[in-house]
Amino acid sequence: MSEKIGIAIIGCGTVGGATARLLTDDIAYINKRSGLNLELTAVVDRDPAPLEKAGLSTTLFEPEFQKVLDNEEIKIVVELVGGLTIAKQFIEKSLKAGKHVVTANKALLAHYGKELFALARKNGASIGFEASCGGGIPIIKALTDGLLANRIDAFFGIVNGTCNYILTQMTEKGQSYREALKRAQEKGLAEADPTLDVNGMDSAHKLAIMSSLSYGEHVDLDTLSVEGIDNLEGMDIQMSRELGYVVKLLAAARKTDEGLDLFVAPCFISNDHPLARVSGPFNAISVYGHAVGHTMYYGRGAGGFPTASAVAADVLALAMGVTQKAFESLNFWPDLTPEAVLIDREKSVNRYYLRLVTDDKPGVVARITTLLSQKGISISSMIQRETLEPVTVVITTHEANEGDIASVLEALETLPEIREKPICLRIMEEHSENIG
Amino acid sequence: MSEKIGIAIIGCGTVGGATARLLTDDIAYINKRSGLNLELTAVVDRDPAPLEKAGLSTTLFEPEFQKVLDNEEIKIVVELVGGLTIAKQFIEKSLKAGKHVVTANKALLAHYGKELFALARKNGASIGFEASCGGGIPIIKALTDGLLANRIDAFFGIVNGTCNYILTQMTEKGQSYREALKRAQEKGLAEADPTLDVNGMDSAHKLAIMSSLSYGEHVDLDTLSVEGIDNLEGMDIQMSRELGYVVKLLAAARKTDEGLDLFVAPCFISNDHPLARVSGPFNAISVYGHAVGHTMYYGRGAGGFPTASAVAADVLALAMGVTQKAFESLNFWPDLTPEAVLIDREKSVNRYYLRLVTDDKPGVVARITTLLSQKGISISSMIQRETLEPVTVVITTHEANEGDIASVLEALETLPEIREKPICLRIMEEHSENIG
Repeated sequence: MSEKIGIAIIGCGTVGGATARLLTDDIAYINKRSGLNLELTAVVDRDPAPLEKAGLSTTLFEPEFQKVLDNEEIKIVVELVGGLTIAKQFIEKSLKAGKHVVTANKALLAHYGKELFALARKNGASIGFEASCGGGIPIIKALTDGLLANRIDAFFGIVNGTCNYILTQMTEKGQSYREALKRAQEKGLAEADPTLDVNGMDSAHKLAIMSSLSYGEHVDLDTLSVEGIDNLEGMDIQMSRELGYVVKLLAAARKTDEGLDLFVAPCFISNDHPLARVSGPFNAISVYGHAVGHTMYYGRGAGGFPTASAVAADVLALAMGVTQKAFESLNFWPDLTPEAVLIDREKSVNRYYLRLVTDDKPGVVARITTLLSQKGISISSMIQRETLEPVTVVITTHEANEGDIASVLEALETLPEIREKPICLRIMEEHSENIG
Repeated sequence: MSEKIGIAIIGCGTVGGATARLLTDDIAYINKRSGLNLELTAVVDRDPAPLEKAGLSTTLFEPEFQKVLDNEEIKIVVELVGGLTIAKQFIEKSLKAGKHVVTANKALLAHYGKELFALARKNGASIGFEASCGGGIPIIKALTDGLLANRIDAFFGIVNGTCNYILTQMTEKGQSYREALKRAQEKGLAEADPTLDVNGMDSAHKLAIMSSLSYGEHVDLDTLSVEGIDNLEGMDIQMSRELGYVVKLLAAARKTDEGLDLFVAPCFISNDHPLARVSGPFNAISVYGHAVGHTMYYGRGAGGFPTASAVAADVLALAMGVTQKAFESLNFWPDLTPEAVLIDREKSVNRYYLRLVTDDKPGVVARITTLLSQKGISISSMIQRETLEPVTVVITTHEANEGDIASVLEALETLPEIREKPICLRIMEEHSENIG
């Protein structure tokens, strides 16, 4: 029998509790399958109540983290506390004690990945973070292993289950953003304070992590263009359906000759794209490699057991020594990468959806279309509804750059006939595969 | 700089040529990204013409395989010859020489996986076979790594691009099987002799490989229930659409208390299931784990560069030593697994679609439905079209076992009013996730 490998879990919340259950209830199966001799040694939390709630034996309860550090049998520390403060201390102390770390903490990695990976390397330890992006979906493994020989042309991910659930409710049930958010909270799919989810920052953390791995360049969170779903109106969801699209919050990355084009924003995506069908709390990431073409990875992006599946996979890969081999060899871990070169946002090219609320006066449409044509922006489709005043004009454009669209929007706002701030959303085209 | 690792490719066909191109054109990128020092040393084929055709330097051409075996710099041999005879010899000789092997040869692995893995183990070598299932999709890695802590409740895969292209043509263009096959051949998506693809055997090879990894039991090809698409009629495709389904050739596996339920067959699958949207030459595999729930992996299942992407990932994982760690530790490689216990086919439970062509006489429908109810088979929906004789009766059932359905079909055939052999296809329901 192989050497016993002790594991400690810090934080017995939803994911911590499920991970602890998986590593106790199923440990015989897992050890048989993996040929390892894993044992969950300790679950660290303030008091034993969360262990009881998770259905765990309180003999696992350990209030003193120092005891974990001192226990030489514990080789792997699983940080599931979350946040940027004590979680960071737990990880740093574990790495300094030469213990490997597994974490699901995307915020921490997006902010401090560089220094944490450097610290791991210095102490001969490794970090597993599969659970940080896409919950149970093995997307980190896909980027760092399965697609390793590819240049990643682009990836588009639905990486926040809360937002996707809200958007699905708005789309399928015609609910307003407020109604859908309330429903998500009732179902436990949104936090009481959902800010980080709905404002796009959680998706931005994941975008930063996945971009760094895909392009071997360190992406600074502060440089990202991030827009959430908190200002979305039901009207635009409705229009997307009429036009053959759905609205999804995307974390998007494209490699261009002028730098990486990275953003988080609610986007129109064609009904024909596989991402359009990803509904409710599910996540999915489409990755376009220069050899493999379009691949997509789909699954539950959050929740106790789905996330525990990814955490446990990391634990196993560390216990086998697989992660260490990749950590030693590959050159794109956060501590090794230069700063990313990002495209000037004004040069980012997309198609756009515009919705304008105007007076019903002669010449309005002519004025709008003239403004667009002066900026060289070509119209793909236009709808003006026979309706009561005010009139709604919806325009989809051919490809244009963000700088030109921004100046058109600015000019439109000054027109006296325009009643409200114009709405503008990106339309994500199917990315061409360019295989070979 | 790390030690030079030489690679030899045997067979310069579509995949061999693309792999050689990827490992020459992009070798600087790949080595930089991976921190390795890989070099494509030789491409073995009968004559240099295929190298020229692939745009490769003929200095790589090596007609004598023995020279590959004798070259100590070559650590990894990539077998892309295909078939069961000389491919096996190449692999055996390579393993005996202590060289690692990468192969895309599903037929060979499905037939001889057990002995080849045993030979590898005996000689301290490993085998990479990501490209054997799902082309460029990293599905083998998902099963053996990302989902390692899961019990796999079930998986359903569209794993043959030729069949999926044909079915998509039949569905979207209303083509007959013959027309769609011809079109696939013209587009290079079907071989001149498409037998192994369209009769389901290629999918069966992949089912055997994926089941063995998922369940840690060796699946004997000869024990599988395999049905192809070569007898499918346009009428049934049409009916599937009317009923809210699409027809897909599925390689399906479910764990039941009475053994593994494995089959390859054209099935009805609900429009709402993500697999229903997988069209043309694309492949996808839905995997249901007890912790992770439903995950899906999507991409190109064939073609030179997409398959080369998977081959190159295997080469890299071997060069880093990642594969070896998993090969040494995990207990479900083909040489280590006991024979699978399969469910008695009669006990396999599914929903079914039945199409009957009958005389237009009073009492026919009553007789059919009585037969079904006598076997305890409950009808979910029934359509009888107002049409000229003969009459078409379409029935979908609730869950029933294959034994009962088989005896109903037998009884139906003896009814004098039934004009043609009844058509019966499985309806695959969304598999319940049972998370936790």
